[in-house]
Amino acid sequence: MAKEIPSRSEDYSSWYNELVKKADLAEHSDVRGCMVIKPYGYSIWEKMQQALDKMFKDTGHTNAYFPLFVPKSLFEAEEKNAEGFAKECAIVTHYRLKSDPQHKGKLIVDPDAQLEEELVVRPTSEAIIWSTYKKWIQSYRDLPILVNQWANVVRWEMRTRLFLRTAEFLWQEGHTAHVTEKEAIQEAEQMLNVYAEFAETFMALPVVKGIKSEGERFPGAIETYCIEAMMQDGKALQAGTSHFLGQNFAKAFDVKFTSKEGKLEYVWGTSWGVSTRLIGALIMAHSDDDGLILPPKLAPIHVVIVPIFKTEEELAKISAKAHEISSALRKQGYTVKFDDRDTYKPGFKFAEWELKGVPVRLAIGPRDMENGTVEVARRDTKEKQVMKLDEVASNIPALLDNIQENIYQKALTFRTEVTTKVDTYEEFKHVLDGKGGFVLAHWDGTPETEAAIKEETKATIRCIPLDAPEESGTCIFSGKPSTKRVMFARAY
Amino acid sequence: MAKEIPSRSEDYSSWYNELVKKADLAEHSDVRGCMVIKPYGYSIWEKMQQALDKMFKDTGHTNAYFPLFVPKSLFEAEEKNAEGFAKECAIVTHYRLKSDPQHKGKLIVDPDAQLEEELVVRPTSEAIIWSTYKKWIQSYRDLPILVNQWANVVRWEMRTRLFLRTAEFLWQEGHTAHVTEKEAIQEAEQMLNVYAEFAETFMALPVVKGIKSEGERFPGAIETYCIEAMMQDGKALQAGTSHFLGQNFAKAFDVKFTSKEGKLEYVWGTSWGVSTRLIGALIMAHSDDDGLILPPKLAPIHVVIVPIFKTEEELAKISAKAHEISSALRKQGYTVKFDDRDTYKPGFKFAEWELKGVPVRLAIGPRDMENGTVEVARRDTKEKQVMKLDEVASNIPALLDNIQENIYQKALTFRTEVTTKVDTYEEFKHVLDGKGGFVLAHWDGTPETEAAIKEETKATIRCIPLDAPEESGTCIFSGKPSTKRVMFARAY
Repeated sequence: MAKEIPSRSEDYSSWYNELVKKADLAEHSDVRGCMVIKPYGYSIWEKMQQALDKMFKDTGHTNAYFPLFVPKSLFEAEEKNAEGFAKECAIVTHYRLKSDPQHKGKLIVDPDAQLEEELVVRPTSEAIIWSTYKKWIQSYRDLPILVNQWANVVRWEMRTRLFLRTAEFLWQEGHTAHVTEKEAIQEAEQMLNVYAEFAETFMALPVVKGIKSEGERFPGAIETYCIEAMMQDGKALQAGTSHFLGQNFAKAFDVKFTSKEGKLEYVWGTSWGVSTRLIGALIMAHSDDDGLILPPKLAPIHVVIVPIFKTEEELAKISAKAHEISSALRKQGYTVKFDDRDTYKPGFKFAEWELKGVPVRLAIGPRDMENGTVEVARRDTKEKQVMKLDEVASNIPALLDNIQENIYQKALTFRTEVTTKVDTYEEFKHVLDGKGGFVLAHWDGTPETEAAIKEETKATIRCIPLDAPEESGTCIFSGKPSTKRVMFARAY
Repeated sequence: MAKEIPSRSEDYSSWYNELVKKADLAEHSDVRGCMVIKPYGYSIWEKMQQALDKMFKDTGHTNAYFPLFVPKSLFEAEEKNAEGFAKECAIVTHYRLKSDPQHKGKLIVDPDAQLEEELVVRPTSEAIIWSTYKKWIQSYRDLPILVNQWANVVRWEMRTRLFLRTAEFLWQEGHTAHVTEKEAIQEAEQMLNVYAEFAETFMALPVVKGIKSEGERFPGAIETYCIEAMMQDGKALQAGTSHFLGQNFAKAFDVKFTSKEGKLEYVWGTSWGVSTRLIGALIMAHSDDDGLILPPKLAPIHVVIVPIFKTEEELAKISAKAHEISSALRKQGYTVKFDDRDTYKPGFKFAEWELKGVPVRLAIGPRDMENGTVEVARRDTKEKQVMKLDEVASNIPALLDNIQENIYQKALTFRTEVTTKVDTYEEFKHVLDGKGGFVLAHWDGTPETEAAIKEETKATIRCIPLDAPEESGTCIFSGKPSTKRVMFARAY
């Protein structure tokens, strides 16, 4: 094996950390809590960006860019939002360094260059964006505003984890402004659906759509919609959120418009985002003890071709064929890597490309050339089959589609297996400590019960599923009546 | 007219500022020195990114992402680089806000949350990237590293100007590491050529390739290559730079590799970048008193169709035809806007799309429908012609190519007109105060002369053109011998 990683059953957490590093996705940087996203990891993000960006544009949104910094006075304008993020903000206080008179070649912060007003490095951009929208909106004719931003944000974290929780991360944040409450709610729901479709179609990741309880709501939102995914260790991961902001930010920043009827009214808003955290979800949902398993729609490399040769002459013949296959596949939009390094043996290369999650591997040796065959290995199931050399290029698109579908089905089957309905608190704790997963249980709807359950079991209400049927029952904790099951889990 | 802007001859600077704002490209934000890039402006940046990103990938580079923050101790490691940027750095000193006990609802910086080591918001990323490369590089087998990053950077500026000079801006920065000096120089030169090709092919902007004098060199570089462009007011604009860093950063961060021969050697480096400043260059090089003139290859909208109608019935007929034309053009990859707003008159719409620089405008009225004709107006020359409705879609690609070429030729002709060879200092000053532009003059090669000329005339050496012929002469300032003319100009 090229690079060993711990197995999932041995230590799921180390398996994840080592996999992220060994597969060249990301690493910790010299800046506390901040990661370096390495080229292979970044290329997955680029694939995600491309797909999402198209979906945003297809639903009428355009991109823009707003400042990294938020003056403190703007930051604090929407009180709940400010309160929610105040404890994790990086603050710029000075704008200059100067030579350290005590130590030659060293620099110190220039005390004469203190800012009159401190700047918050954006943890999210509602404040700076709504202060801008105030200038853009006068009349109903200026609405809706459907804007998205691709950006970095900073939320100071003490305990960090590559992709899942880092002080700086990359994301997109949509910020929209509307004439009516109904239109804003429709927008928030539309974007939830976009996220769910992206997760299922591209990430091969089944998700539950729902709304957050009050305790888990975005600070400053009236309603937070979310998609929740299940990881292989039975823990949930919030994969995207879409917020109906009501008129909260419009009121905080005094953003009003003149309606068709000539009345001055506050604007309705939404915001919605997904981040590089999705890469963490992708890894934890699908990968195995040999490394990454990437769904073809997000794989930076679709097919790797490994030549098996002893002589230069053999390599030359195989290369010619490999280039033919590559070229046919590239024309169809696939990325193909021909790994003809002579410094490594085939077995090493096999392990390396398995670690990196390339969906399909072709191995071609001298005997294959004679027989007109090629060994085709799929990464998801590790099954191998022999195909005719002349047919392999035309067979691969269907194989990749099959892999994409299979990865999704496997994740869906797993999620179904670890989704449990319980009716008692005993059963609830038993399931959580056993197989884990999503636990559907009745809840009395109070923040007190939610907090008590969290305190005792570390499980939180991931969401109230949108499709939860009306069903009368009693709260597993308080015994009070409930009309609907909510979805609990321990979560990332 | 929809929105008035001052004419260039009246006040070039106000013309630029107003145009940027009125054409909805960007505006000042509530954060000192930072701009908001509005959707229309951002879509030009997206077009630029797309083209550049493809050129970077075609030359073997991949994207990655490095932290926004640079710990002060890393920042100061390469002394010249640190010294060059120290005076314009935003500094993060704290990581938390807390409630202001004196003012309810207000926040203050929590004095208990002071960072042990201050963080510099990256003004450029050599320091953080070379401290990372140290971990990536052991052997010659790990080289070259060919990485690019799309990111925001912050350079504290007192006098800012939308796109041209802002405290925060967006850019790309390539950072490469190589085994040999020769390879690194080739890389720096290759990227200079990529930038020049991008400027000329996409931006329709002729550029002079050259190297900077020592005084204008990037802090920490051995050699800075640049492309210089000419604006319509006779001032130069540096449009991109590519730096050969020698072993400076490798030495500062102790980045060594074991060579094929088993020797431990310092790595050779380059860095290169272009920024949202290019949008400023694009505007100032081509636009006119009626608004933007965008080269088709970077125009967010290629063709706008304005219906001229009185009745709903007329509009319906024109719409059907417009959709046919749009659809045919979209299939060929063009973006078409059908402006059927009933709240504005055609004249208003014409002015608005001229302001926004859409290369081609089609106007279709009831008489056109009868005659099977359409009025086609090109934005660059403002010429109008009548085409057959059935042929317009197939004629437009050639028309757009012609516009792209014409904009380039116009800029080239202008640059040629304002490029002057002078042999005396009197002549030099006369040209600068007259038509301005590029002035080719002999220089004795000393920083003292360069500084004195800058002090007296505000002109700087933009570059020593790569294609400057060997030619013996005498320095216009000192009278000392010189072997080559260098290119002076007043600059942005």
